[in-house]
Amino acid sequence: MSAGQATRMRILLVGAGGTLGRAVAAELGTRHHIIAAGRKSGHVRLELTDPASIRQAFAKAAPGPLDAVVCTAGEVAFAPMSTIHPAPIGESAYTLGLTNKLLGQVNLALAAREHLVDGGSITLTSGILSEVPVAGGSSASMADAALEGFVRAAAAELPRGIRINVVSPSILVESLEAFGAMFRGFEPVPAARAALAYSRSVEGIQTGQVFRVY
Amino acid sequence: MSAGQATRMRILLVGAGGTLGRAVAAELGTRHHIIAAGRKSGHVRLELTDPASIRQAFAKAAPGPLDAVVCTAGEVAFAPMSTIHPAPIGESAYTLGLTNKLLGQVNLALAAREHLVDGGSITLTSGILSEVPVAGGSSASMADAALEGFVRAAAAELPRGIRINVVSPSILVESLEAFGAMFRGFEPVPAARAALAYSRSVEGIQTGQVFRVY
Repeated sequence: MSAGQATRMRILLVGAGGTLGRAVAAELGTRHHIIAAGRKSGHVRLELTDPASIRQAFAKAAPGPLDAVVCTAGEVAFAPMSTIHPAPIGESAYTLGLTNKLLGQVNLALAAREHLVDGGSITLTSGILSEVPVAGGSSASMADAALEGFVRAAAAELPRGIRINVVSPSILVESLEAFGAMFRGFEPVPAARAALAYSRSVEGIQTGQVFRVY
Repeated sequence: MSAGQATRMRILLVGAGGTLGRAVAAELGTRHHIIAAGRKSGHVRLELTDPASIRQAFAKAAPGPLDAVVCTAGEVAFAPMSTIHPAPIGESAYTLGLTNKLLGQVNLALAAREHLVDGGSITLTSGILSEVPVAGGSSASMADAALEGFVRAAAAELPRGIRINVVSPSILVESLEAFGAMFRGFEPVPAARAALAYSRSVEGIQTGQVFRVY
């Protein structure tokens, strides 16, 4: 994986069945071997909120060397903040974002350490709401920003030259029909353009970075 | 609370017994009435992780109008990332940071909405680790960044002109003896200097901002 060397990598892609995941698979799949992981589809099944499921997915994916782990999965709940009230972690409107998109991806990164080759990489997904709020998006803003803070810190503590970055896309062109009403005036990005940021993270040399795609 | 008007405010200060809280009380207490809240001391007792305790503290503090809520409390656990492994929310090394410093302050902000006057303010506390990592600080980096994302989003959804900001201090001069070894090379800031940022949030006009003190 030194500069200029065209290595065919084995890449575990979590969320491979989603809109963004399919675009990442299309981009990286032309040069690398993609092991597709998902909750409901893919070569291996993986439920982000279940550490045992994450471990099992790595066990299935990693008999061969694993060069990169990419996650394009992660759920948050959208709700007007006027409907959100103080609640403990298990009962909060913020629980899904904190346990799924945030801690799910963090646990995936922690588990990946044991399975990645020296100099391998981890690429997670946050989103534009980290920096730009929308109505009802406070859980996403919290989880996305938390992921970016985690990645800045984790990059400095990962062993064996393992890198970690996070891609922060704007609303995708392909998601406009479902979510466009929440993102009026946002410039949508094609999933194929967002996929380039994952390529840059996996096939580049940076670590601890937020790759904004907007 | 219009510009130039010197109003004596009633301010609920959570964490008033701590190093930073005492400095904030000294700064704001010369001009305003401070209602000190803390886990172990203060006019009212408040345990950040317990929404019922937060509600009770507001009930005790708010027979009169409440103009501002300031929080200088919030705990995280420090641990080398090499010792942190995938775990569900209740058992994770990240649980304290997510439930106490993050969700505790978020719940305080959510509860404050019902008790603050029109145009009142909420000021939370993150920290320099949001942007700058230290060894063992991944939980703090995650919680601090999450708070900043939440505040950017919440500012746009708070009712009745209520403002919200977050202060992000570097290591305090007064905390060097306890934590200095983790922060070698960081320029420490006197708590009294950090306290100015809380004054600027409470007595100024901005909202959705991160006040960096470093």
